[in-house]
Amino acid sequence: MQENREKCMELANRIYDLDGEVYKCVGSALGRTFTGSRENTVQNLCMLMLTKPDGHLLRSELALISNMARTIKDKEAKDRMIAEYDNILEEIEKLPDGFGKVDIVDLSRAELNPTTRKKLSGDDHLVICISRTQGSAGNDIGFELADELHINYYDVEIFNQVLKRLEAEKGSVNDAETESFADFDKYKKRNFSLKTWFREFNRYHGLPRQDAVFFNMSDLICSLARSEDCVIMGRCADAILTNNHIPHISLFISAPFSLRIQRLMASKNMEFRQAARFLRQMDRQHQKYYDFFTGGRWGRPENYDLCINSANYGIRETIDLIERMIDEKRK
Amino acid sequence: MQENREKCMELANRIYDLDGEVYKCVGSALGRTFTGSRENTVQNLCMLMLTKPDGHLLRSELALISNMARTIKDKEAKDRMIAEYDNILEEIEKLPDGFGKVDIVDLSRAELNPTTRKKLSGDDHLVICISRTQGSAGNDIGFELADELHINYYDVEIFNQVLKRLEAEKGSVNDAETESFADFDKYKKRNFSLKTWFREFNRYHGLPRQDAVFFNMSDLICSLARSEDCVIMGRCADAILTNNHIPHISLFISAPFSLRIQRLMASKNMEFRQAARFLRQMDRQHQKYYDFFTGGRWGRPENYDLCINSANYGIRETIDLIERMIDEKRK
Repeated sequence: MQENREKCMELANRIYDLDGEVYKCVGSALGRTFTGSRENTVQNLCMLMLTKPDGHLLRSELALISNMARTIKDKEAKDRMIAEYDNILEEIEKLPDGFGKVDIVDLSRAELNPTTRKKLSGDDHLVICISRTQGSAGNDIGFELADELHINYYDVEIFNQVLKRLEAEKGSVNDAETESFADFDKYKKRNFSLKTWFREFNRYHGLPRQDAVFFNMSDLICSLARSEDCVIMGRCADAILTNNHIPHISLFISAPFSLRIQRLMASKNMEFRQAARFLRQMDRQHQKYYDFFTGGRWGRPENYDLCINSANYGIRETIDLIERMIDEKRK
Repeated sequence: MQENREKCMELANRIYDLDGEVYKCVGSALGRTFTGSRENTVQNLCMLMLTKPDGHLLRSELALISNMARTIKDKEAKDRMIAEYDNILEEIEKLPDGFGKVDIVDLSRAELNPTTRKKLSGDDHLVICISRTQGSAGNDIGFELADELHINYYDVEIFNQVLKRLEAEKGSVNDAETESFADFDKYKKRNFSLKTWFREFNRYHGLPRQDAVFFNMSDLICSLARSEDCVIMGRCADAILTNNHIPHISLFISAPFSLRIQRLMASKNMEFRQAARFLRQMDRQHQKYYDFFTGGRWGRPENYDLCINSANYGIRETIDLIERMIDEKRK
C-alpha cells in the first residue's frame, strides 16, 4: 500500500510536469489542464489513482493533456511528450486498480462468438444468424453474403420445404409449411372442433401444433449449425443456438422506417399507405414471434452481437462490413 | 419483352436440369427441389423471374439447389455444378429486374459515412461518435480506441473543461460545467426568482440556459469534427454532425442489463439493488437527453450505423472489431 502510494505520487508529479511542458510548447489559449498549485494537483491526482470508482476522471484529465500534445508543431518536442504520456499511461495500467477498468463480458456467450475466438476450432462452423426488419434488405444481404462465402443459405421458404420433406419421409404430418410469420398469431381465434383438437394434440405429443413446428425447426437449426457453415435468416436461430451452446454470430439488420417504406414502394410497387401498413404489421408479427419464443425483446441491441443499419451502408457495403468483421478469424 | 421471356425460359430450363443433375449426384433422401413436371416447373420459374415482387422465392429455390450441390462428394461433378449454378445466378442478375433487388440506402447519410466511401477525402476526418449505456464499458472502449488510433478523445468532462475555459476567455459565463446528464432534467422544478430568470434569459440570448449550453456544445463538436480525427463520447454528437453534414461514424455500445449490473458492482463497489437503481436512473436520463435534443429514440438500432453488444465481445475484442471495421478505408 505504501509502495503503491509512492508510485502514485511519482506518477502524479510526472503528469503535472507533462502538463506544464505541453502548455509551454502549445501556448494554448485554453491554458494548462491543471490550474491549481502543484501540491493540490498532485494530491488530487493521487486520490484519483487510489480510489478506483472515479478512474474515468483521471482518464479525462490525461486525454486533455494528450489532445493538446498532439497539436505541438515542433516534431521532436511532440514525440518526446507523447512518449512520456504513453509511458505514464502504461504505468497507470500497471497499478493494482489502473483506471478502475473492469471488463464487461458474458463468458458463456463470448465463448460461442466465433469472432472473439482466436480461431474457429476444427469442429466449429461459421454460422451467421441474421434477424432483420422487413424492407431493410436483410434477405438480399444474407443471400449474397452466403454466396460470396460459399456457404449454405437458409430462409423460411427453405426451412419449410426441408421440414415438409423430412416429415413426409417419416410418414408423419407435412403441414409444416403453414408455420410462417405471416400466419403467426398465438392468440388468433381458430375454427376448430374438439375432434380436430384431439387429433392435433396427439399428433404433436401434447404440444400445441405451432409449438411443435417450432421445436422441429429448432432441431433442424441445431443440427445444421453443428454440421456446416451457413447463413440462417430469422427463425430466432440466434436464441436457439445460444440455448444449445452452439457457436454462432448474431446480427440484426434494420433501417429507418421511412427508408424501408421507400424501398417497399420501389420493390413491391406498393403505394405509400399500403407499404406503411404492411411494414407495421410485419414488425408487429416479427416482434410477437421473437418475444414469444425467446422471452427477449425483438430488435434491442443487447439481444444481438451486432446491429447494422443497412440504410447507412447500402447492400454492397453492408456485406463488405460483415465480411471484414469475420474475415481475419477465418484465415 | 419477348426476348426477355425467351431468356427466362432458357434459364428456367437450365435450373430444372441442374436440380435433376444435383439430385442424381447427391441421391438426397430429401428428393429433388422441384417435384413437379418440367413444363409446370419451368412455367413457375419463369413467372418468378418476370414478376419481381416475389423474387425472394426464386432465390430460395436456387439456394436449396446450391446447398445440396455443395454436399456432392465427387469433386469434378461438384465443381461443374457449382459453376453452372454461379453462371445461372449471374444471368439472373443481368435480367431487368434480377431478383427484384432494390438497394436500401439513405444517400445523404451514407455520403457522410467514412466506412462507405472509397477513401476519406483530404479534407475529411475520421470522427467516431460513440453513444453507450452506463456500465457497458463504452468509455473504456472509446478511450483505448482513441489511444490506439492516436487520435483525440473527448468525453463530457473534457467538453465541460474546454467550454468553461472558452467561456471564461470570452469574458462570458463559465457555468457550463453544471450541464451534465446527472443534472439533466428538462422538467425538474427549480428554485428561482423572477430576477434570476431575467438574468439567465438575457445571458443566453433568450434561450433557456440548458439549451444555450447545448448549442455551445454543438458548435464545439462541429468545429472539432471539421478540424481533426477524434473519438467523441455521447453528447448526441452523431445527430449534431448529421444535421451539419459532417462525416462521421456513429456507434452505440450496450450490454444486457444483468451484465451491466455485475460490472457496476465490481467497478464501483455497489450492492445489487443500488446498482440496479443507478442504472435505471442513468438509462432514463440518457434517453431523456437524447430524445429531447434529437427527436429520435435513444438506443434504437436505426439511429446509429452500428450497435455493438460489448458483453458478447469484451473490451479488447470490441476495440479490435471497430478497428477492423474502419481499418481498410484508412489505409
